Amino acid sequence: MEKRIKLCMVGAGRVGKNHAQALTRHVPAAEIVALVDPAVEVRNATGEEFGIEKRDDTMEQAAEEIAFDAVVITTPTFTHKDLARQAAELGKHIFLEKPMAISIEECDQIIQACEENNVLLQLGFMRHFQPEFVEAARRIEAGEIGKPMLVKSLTHGPGLPPAWARDLQMSNGMLAEVNSHDWDAVRWLMGSNYSRVYAEVANLKGEKFNIDAPDFYDTALVSIRFESGSLGTFSGVCPCEYGYDARMEIVGDKGIMQIGEMKGQSIITCTNRDQGLISPIFRTWPQRFAWGYIYELEHFVQCVQTGEQPLVTGNDGRWAVAGVLAGTKSFQEERPVYLNEILN
Amino acid sequence: MEKRIKLCMVGAGRVGKNHAQALTRHVPAAEIVALVDPAVEVRNATGEEFGIEKRDDTMEQAAEEIAFDAVVITTPTFTHKDLARQAAELGKHIFLEKPMAISIEECDQIIQACEENNVLLQLGFMRHFQPEFVEAARRIEAGEIGKPMLVKSLTHGPGLPPAWARDLQMSNGMLAEVNSHDWDAVRWLMGSNYSRVYAEVANLKGEKFNIDAPDFYDTALVSIRFESGSLGTFSGVCPCEYGYDARMEIVGDKGIMQIGEMKGQSIITCTNRDQGLISPIFRTWPQRFAWGYIYELEHFVQCVQTGEQPLVTGNDGRWAVAGVLAGTKSFQEERPVYLNEILN
Amino acid sequence: MEKRIKLCMVGAGRVGKNHAQALTRHVPAAEIVALVDPAVEVRNATGEEFGIEKRDDTMEQAAEEIAFDAVVITTPTFTHKDLARQAAELGKHIFLEKPMAISIEECDQIIQACEENNVLLQLGFMRHFQPEFVEAARRIEAGEIGKPMLVKSLTHGPGLPPAWARDLQMSNGMLAEVNSHDWDAVRWLMGSNYSRVYAEVANLKGEKFNIDAPDFYDTALVSIRFESGSLGTFSGVCPCEYGYDARMEIVGDKGIMQIGEMKGQSIITCTNRDQGLISPIFRTWPQRFAWGYIYELEHFVQCVQTGEQPLVTGNDGRWAVAGVLAGTKSFQEERPVYLNEILN
Amino acid sequence: MEKRIKLCMVGAGRVGKNHAQALTRHVPAAEIVALVDPAVEVRNATGEEFGIEKRDDTMEQAAEEIAFDAVVITTPTFTHKDLARQAAELGKHIFLEKPMAISIEECDQIIQACEENNVLLQLGFMRHFQPEFVEAARRIEAGEIGKPMLVKSLTHGPGLPPAWARDLQMSNGMLAEVNSHDWDAVRWLMGSNYSRVYAEVANLKGEKFNIDAPDFYDTALVSIRFESGSLGTFSGVCPCEYGYDARMEIVGDKGIMQIGEMKGQSIITCTNRDQGLISPIFRTWPQRFAWGYIYELEHFVQCVQTGEQPLVTGNDGRWAVAGVLAGTKSFQEERPVYLNEILN
Repeated sequence: MEKRIKLCMVGAGRVGKNHAQALTRHVPAAEIVALVDPAVEVRNATGEEFGIEKRDDTMEQAAEEIAFDAVVITTPTFTHKDLARQAAELGKHIFLEKPMAISIEECDQIIQACEENNVLLQLGFMRHFQPEFVEAARRIEAGEIGKPMLVKSLTHGPGLPPAWARDLQMSNGMLAEVNSHDWDAVRWLMGSNYSRVYAEVANLKGEKFNIDAPDFYDTALVSIRFESGSLGTFSGVCPCEYGYDARMEIVGDKGIMQIGEMKGQSIITCTNRDQGLISPIFRTWPQRFAWGYIYELEHFVQCVQTGEQPLVTGNDGRWAVAGVLAGTKSFQEERPVYLNEILN
Repeated sequence: MEKRIKLCMVGAGRVGKNHAQALTRHVPAAEIVALVDPAVEVRNATGEEFGIEKRDDTMEQAAEEIAFDAVVITTPTFTHKDLARQAAELGKHIFLEKPMAISIEECDQIIQACEENNVLLQLGFMRHFQPEFVEAARRIEAGEIGKPMLVKSLTHGPGLPPAWARDLQMSNGMLAEVNSHDWDAVRWLMGSNYSRVYAEVANLKGEKFNIDAPDFYDTALVSIRFESGSLGTFSGVCPCEYGYDARMEIVGDKGIMQIGEMKGQSIITCTNRDQGLISPIFRTWPQRFAWGYIYELEHFVQCVQTGEQPLVTGNDGRWAVAGVLAGTKSFQEERPVYLNEILN
Repeated sequence: MEKRIKLCMVGAGRVGKNHAQALTRHVPAAEIVALVDPAVEVRNATGEEFGIEKRDDTMEQAAEEIAFDAVVITTPTFTHKDLARQAAELGKHIFLEKPMAISIEECDQIIQACEENNVLLQLGFMRHFQPEFVEAARRIEAGEIGKPMLVKSLTHGPGLPPAWARDLQMSNGMLAEVNSHDWDAVRWLMGSNYSRVYAEVANLKGEKFNIDAPDFYDTALVSIRFESGSLGTFSGVCPCEYGYDARMEIVGDKGIMQIGEMKGQSIITCTNRDQGLISPIFRTWPQRFAWGYIYELEHFVQCVQTGEQPLVTGNDGRWAVAGVLAGTKSFQEERPVYLNEILN
Repeated sequence: MEKRIKLCMVGAGRVGKNHAQALTRHVPAAEIVALVDPAVEVRNATGEEFGIEKRDDTMEQAAEEIAFDAVVITTPTFTHKDLARQAAELGKHIFLEKPMAISIEECDQIIQACEENNVLLQLGFMRHFQPEFVEAARRIEAGEIGKPMLVKSLTHGPGLPPAWARDLQMSNGMLAEVNSHDWDAVRWLMGSNYSRVYAEVANLKGEKFNIDAPDFYDTALVSIRFESGSLGTFSGVCPCEYGYDARMEIVGDKGIMQIGEMKGQSIITCTNRDQGLISPIFRTWPQRFAWGYIYELEHFVQCVQTGEQPLVTGNDGRWAVAGVLAGTKSFQEERPVYLNEILN
């Protein structure tokens, strides 16, 4: 067996805990040796829960005190560039959560730092490892539905985002925080980069939730023309009342494919014929993508063991950020925006 | 166009109304010219609703006063033998609701009367005309799932049956009143007669509904060995709280086929992630088999116009009665019962 | 019973036959007394099939020779304005297929002619009568999913459209011929008019089908901002290889609702575990909307009998045309188009 | 963290490999330290695959050479009694695959040996740990569907069983090898023991597969009356052509519940409107019950760590064997068999 990989978790919040759980229960090839988070209480709670004894304010501190091979960064987006560069300079391989960063410049700096320091970089687009998406990609590649012509995607998530994630300046807002996965997945499955983007957004729940950020929106609809000439669209809704919903649908010139569904556990009940049949829905993203999280981390650990390039790269993260920026510019200027306005 | 067929409805109750509705709205080749029911109020209400002006206590009265080609008999089972024989002797073609009759002797008398008087006889097994059942039968016949080995069926119906239908002496109870369709459908789709039958029944709700008929049961489970060597089972539940449920599943030596589902209208909602997805269920048999009722009556009218033999015959009705009697004997004597105990 | 309504069918093609079938088999309150179509062979075939003996080149001829109350117009879009005005001037009530007409001016002329001649006008948006859509509308109205925020719709249809329907000048193309129902249905269920529209279209199959019309497209994606502030999108694909597909999905601030599904008959088979489960899909629009066509015609006949205003009006037809024109202008000028650019 | 539990795998075949995979990848609290199987090639292949270096012919040998806390026994049924007693006498906790043993006497000997040697015994009924079954049990317990009245279950499995498993004397045949899970699950979810059993079996594929065992059957249908007065049925088909199928359906006096479905991965495609929609089916039991296997082993390891009694006990295994014996006697004697004929 390959040697066990030592990891430092950077970020002890919701996503950090999800990944710590996947790693400690389902990725025996990895060992979490340190947990970094400046928020002491959060760090201690997460450390306690997963039996991580080494806990620090900063990655540098951790690196001085304990040996590790790689970092798993799950902190807010605006911290990614600095943290990823630090990790690269420390010679640590990097698993970096989405969105990659706030701007194309930041993405480029991260990519460059990883290249210069010869460390691996994997972006946290776990859909590439979620079994039904993997199988769908395989079939599309094999030509099952012909040339992809039209893709539809959606990510609707429960839970009001934290204040920083509602602030366009700090986070690029919902198009980044919720829909990064859609930006990435439509590009992946269509096998083509975006050429132009049109976005409509709406603030329909801000008042209900007393959100006074002037540029807040909770509902988004993005329209994409791909370089291949094909078309795409996706929606974002957050907070979403009815559950965690992530589905895709692709029409090719030979057929249609649907990936994912709302239904969670396979239980159907009916106790009232006026109400009808009831089935569980996916309530949360950790439920919805349970295997995706396990497999993406397993993949990362394996890449660190073997030196292979991860399947999901900095370039994938950069394209998703480019989409976010084009979409944001589009709804702000109320016009379609070309990707070459963003990337040049 | 063929000449319009004149019908006399015999029975103005629930099933009579269902058929009157199908005939008046969806079978333009037929015309209801008389309505017979000794219950004056019921007869007048139904007559009013469907614009049938000629209303009588008896079929003979109606036949004396107005010309018609055929009768549609929807009265309680224990009246079928006499009414069907009268109709045959009057030279009227007969659409007869299930169950055909109370005993094999009665079935034989009906069949004989129809043959002697040269009138057509169609039994009300509308599943033979319900589009998904028709298609399923076509595919099984075409060998899609191979030789049928195992069939499962169920009919669970809401609504406490009327007192006569809970009395084994008057009606043969639920195995007849509710499950006649299963007896018929498993025989039809398996392409084989029953060889032996084992039935378990339970009275689990009698107390709740204050039913003191000593032989009442609300839950039944029937196990069948077919002459072909294949196996089958079906269940009956009535009253059934959660809707009207009629489904079949057949395993052949090449595959499986499911026919029907609980889901009614194609609407899915979710407004509470702790509750989950909700879809309508079929609430009633008129909803569930809407097209089946239209098409079986259309078929009958067409047979009367052309003289063709109906697809669903007295022999089909007789076999279903034989199953009912074998099943009843089985649970009463707590042993498997052979069909030749019933039919000889 | 109300008096039977006499109808003249104008148009003996595909849609004409569909409506003739619904009327003759399922709407006994109507009687088709004349069939008008300049294409003699088509007219004779359809006339023969449905037993319509009076057949003519023009509506005027028919009107001179036989009495009727109303017309059912199913001819190509570019003929609607003249035919509808003629019918109005003849005092005949009008059932008019979608799209209503080629331009807003034509729509206005039709509406005006109907008002001046005091005849009823019903547009052929049968989704308003399709049971699951009716129930969905009732529930949205009742607040089940809260305030509608985001609607998605699609109509993907098999079959290469006829040459005139691929020519933007003659027909306004697919956004009109295929997606009129989406324009109408999103406006209906969202309870709001469109404010601005952005459309992307693509010609991905033209080469395969040797279509050289310069402005042909087979794939369309429309993005809508409603006056209410809510958002919407729909797609069109035609010809569509995999079946006839029409579904909607609406997110409100309390939940989500899906209307319709791809699955046709309720049969599931599996005969190969490497292939998986197979269910029928809706192959054609007459299958998909069978009840909608029956009920919309029943409704029209009832309105003619009673003088009530039809539920689907000229104004609904006019709004759908406005959407088509805005969408077309949008993809031609590559920018969002405001409805007030079209309607003023 | 609790100390890591050392396990000896007894059995290196199909089930052994499945459990080794679950343990090594998903149960970090366990460590497989030895692999026992008299078949040297199988043992070496499995040992190689999962990095188990200590490999032996017998459990005693392994126990002499290396320390371990518990055994996981996955050998053929007829070896269970002796192996389980040996393990108990060695003081090792026991995870024992189903069926527990060949006879009630053997079950009693195993239970007694575990009690006398104070070792834990968990039976391999992983449905108790499969998330949708766990949730279903919780809801039934909470009264969601009322008092359970009628249960239906099925297990249809691909793959011709090995010769010993087709021999009634050596294995009790399909009712034991395939349907043990049904015997267990219906008893668990109905909360009642069986009172009497009636079984029909059929040999419909023996000829096709050249099986000349005189008592071979490939299709079984079992009817159960529970002590509670409720009814149940399940079917077995093996070999099953269309996939691995395990579903349950329970009707209570307040409603219905379905557990499980045939559909595997959530992908739907359609590339031919004459064929229809296609979805993956579960192909194998390791796919179908992936989480169940992980969680049952996690539970066993936890019980060994803490000394808690496992949720699935020797008594559960014994009742399933009693059902098997009653069912076998029933089809052999062609009559319902009472459990007190088996258990006294």
